[in-house]
Amino acid sequence: MSQHFNSTIAALATSPAVSGIGIIRLSGPDAIELTQKIFVGKKLSEQAAYSMTFGQIVNTEGNIIDEVLISIFRAPHSYTGEDTVEINCHGSRFILSEVLSLLIKQGAQLAQAGEFTMRAYLNAKMDLSQAEAVADLIYSETVAQHKLAINQMKGGIKDSIAALRTNLIDFASLLELELDFSEEDVEFANRKNLIELVTKIQNKINELLKSFELGNAVKYGISTVIAGRPNAGKSTLLNALLEEDRAIVSEIAGTTRDTIEEKMNIRGLVFRFIDTAGIRDTKDTIEALGVQRTLDKIQNSSILIYVADVIGLSPEELWKDIHEVASVDQKIIILANKMDLFTVFDYTQYANQFILLDHIIPCSAKNKMNIEFLKNKLFEIAIDEQSMQDTEVAINARHRDCLNRAMIELNEVHQGLHSQLETDLIAQSLRRSIYELGGVTGEVSSEELLGNIFGRFCIGK
Amino acid sequence: MSQHFNSTIAALATSPAVSGIGIIRLSGPDAIELTQKIFVGKKLSEQAAYSMTFGQIVNTEGNIIDEVLISIFRAPHSYTGEDTVEINCHGSRFILSEVLSLLIKQGAQLAQAGEFTMRAYLNAKMDLSQAEAVADLIYSETVAQHKLAINQMKGGIKDSIAALRTNLIDFASLLELELDFSEEDVEFANRKNLIELVTKIQNKINELLKSFELGNAVKYGISTVIAGRPNAGKSTLLNALLEEDRAIVSEIAGTTRDTIEEKMNIRGLVFRFIDTAGIRDTKDTIEALGVQRTLDKIQNSSILIYVADVIGLSPEELWKDIHEVASVDQKIIILANKMDLFTVFDYTQYANQFILLDHIIPCSAKNKMNIEFLKNKLFEIAIDEQSMQDTEVAINARHRDCLNRAMIELNEVHQGLHSQLETDLIAQSLRRSIYELGGVTGEVSSEELLGNIFGRFCIGK
Repeated sequence: MSQHFNSTIAALATSPAVSGIGIIRLSGPDAIELTQKIFVGKKLSEQAAYSMTFGQIVNTEGNIIDEVLISIFRAPHSYTGEDTVEINCHGSRFILSEVLSLLIKQGAQLAQAGEFTMRAYLNAKMDLSQAEAVADLIYSETVAQHKLAINQMKGGIKDSIAALRTNLIDFASLLELELDFSEEDVEFANRKNLIELVTKIQNKINELLKSFELGNAVKYGISTVIAGRPNAGKSTLLNALLEEDRAIVSEIAGTTRDTIEEKMNIRGLVFRFIDTAGIRDTKDTIEALGVQRTLDKIQNSSILIYVADVIGLSPEELWKDIHEVASVDQKIIILANKMDLFTVFDYTQYANQFILLDHIIPCSAKNKMNIEFLKNKLFEIAIDEQSMQDTEVAINARHRDCLNRAMIELNEVHQGLHSQLETDLIAQSLRRSIYELGGVTGEVSSEELLGNIFGRFCIGK
Repeated sequence: MSQHFNSTIAALATSPAVSGIGIIRLSGPDAIELTQKIFVGKKLSEQAAYSMTFGQIVNTEGNIIDEVLISIFRAPHSYTGEDTVEINCHGSRFILSEVLSLLIKQGAQLAQAGEFTMRAYLNAKMDLSQAEAVADLIYSETVAQHKLAINQMKGGIKDSIAALRTNLIDFASLLELELDFSEEDVEFANRKNLIELVTKIQNKINELLKSFELGNAVKYGISTVIAGRPNAGKSTLLNALLEEDRAIVSEIAGTTRDTIEEKMNIRGLVFRFIDTAGIRDTKDTIEALGVQRTLDKIQNSSILIYVADVIGLSPEELWKDIHEVASVDQKIIILANKMDLFTVFDYTQYANQFILLDHIIPCSAKNKMNIEFLKNKLFEIAIDEQSMQDTEVAINARHRDCLNRAMIELNEVHQGLHSQLETDLIAQSLRRSIYELGGVTGEVSSEELLGNIFGRFCIGK
């Protein structure tokens, strides 16, 4: 699939903020020659690959712009697979923009976001899922995000399905061969083995599809809604969790109207906390909208933290409240809040009423009592650590869509084989499933798709 | 003056924002060995200087943190003069902080701001004025700032005075020799030649001292105060110059109370515009404070833009106003504002009243009439371009103080020679002048001084 580009692209590869070092990167057939035109020092074309050369960048009037180190990489042994140059400058905005404009004047093209990695993909230096992982890796901010990204970059998803896809291609070829000899009624492809292979692939796909939710939680945070009656202390809890005054709190019931979302990293997992308007019957139109929004948020969240005022709410009422709002497969933590108002409190009067005894936590959001305990509990119930450590790859939404479509086709194949459907119909579904599986790693891809994927990269990568 | 450090320092050399590349830099005797401890790939100690090696950074549990390129520099052929390693990582905050912590765990010390450059200076890779220029270079944002910084980094100031200082040292030695043989009344040092040399150095110092103002203007901007009576249109002018709504404007006289300062780059020169409260006699205490502040600002600015309302103010009143507020050596531009209120306006009725005819500009800040003309005028009168282009070096405040002190001592020497003062007194002043001149390039320096100078660097440089 290797392609040849005539153009040489250039971009700032570090961030434009003032710092010790700033790097401008070039890739393409003229990378070395273009750099030479603005460089005074040893002859770059004579330098070894993976070497650095000291010298000066000069402008067209011969004025020195900076003293730099030039790194040389030669095709195909570079990130992009093309001749590549990195110009290691002082991290001054002025210098970096000057050097970049000089290169553009000499004929380099300003790189689009992700264009270096797109070239790496188009030059077959990595598959599409690995290229996607590069962006994930750069944006990773927690251990879990980083782990998934680096495993995927090292070929995690490709390894999972590429071999199975190859087997499928072999079978497809045999089926096509049968079709060529259709009048002779021969059977090259062993149907039993094909069924086994399809089942194996389906199991693998199911496993990968399951990883989507995990991957999503790791990347975007586990949605955790904080709900309860008005004035139960929900905003105080959010502030206590974040250790800052994010939400406005007051003693007036109904202070929070809009939902407030904030992310927080707990032991390497990102939680997306959603503070909501208190739930009650209300005549106030704005407040009623807030309540509806709360109910929607609860339905779409993985975890519900239900905050109860231990003084104002009986266990029976609490039970009824949760029953009304929680969704079926939701993980629930009940917070018996405002413990600070008791001198002694027997919170078992609440706890005994619930099966989820383990998940009732007495606390005082105001005094930050048991907040650390709550954080640990959240981590535990969000993902049991075992599954976390076992997970080596997690797919993204694009992969999921490809895999879902492949799954539909494979189901067709499966059923077709069982009901002894005609070979050409089975072969059709098989071809489509191979196509969809290829979409994950980019063995089949469209220009629009590539634009979407590489558009979310930063410039210079 | 070369020193040996036992410690190896490490820091992020690029900015911590998400980007394609992030670099961690190490310098010190164990730079290569420390990196090897967290690196999987070829043996770094066997790699050539100025080479790059591909491999992986792994943590203590053996998990891969990133795929990296390791650049090796060997003492003394590096920026710091020590063994130096640059780890070229993906520009993820998570990865960069992980790699840095791994290095710290292995025994690297987190570098202070400017510590790499301080080591370069202490290892005699550059003199102090060059080291100072590195920070200026990184923070440079205009052509003029950049030019001064790069000339200084390439040894501009050192070149200007180092040779003269060496001659002075030779004379001082001869004088000391005379003192050793004082009983024999010999004269080793030719007095006439010494006077010539001292004069030459004094001329050079005067030249450098003059460059201070220019350097300051280039670095911090040329202070340009906008003053005038209330409601003359000063804030409207500031907004027109900046092309944004920086200052609040209204038709109510006295809208501006605090002075507002904004920088702007005009043809490579930075102007620091200061919008002020209108000048009038007032009973309002707050406004009176504002007026006093305006008068102070005018006194301390290089350029005064006096804004006059062409309708509300007669030429005589204007003349009186300016006479009252302007300082003696100030460059003045008079702006005949609100031209938009005239259909035809003979502004020579103003102009004829002034010697500074050339500097009266009819304009309408509101309609942006003649604003570009004003900008060109500002550039012209700020610095005549010739002097700008000739200037290769400009000293900073620290240099100025050293040079001023050296000048006092050289004056003593000069007078002493003319009045045939005793040799030992002349020799004393000569020694002190040599000491002060050495302070500019750091041939003599104290720890406190170095702390001050390198403290303004970014970490990682």
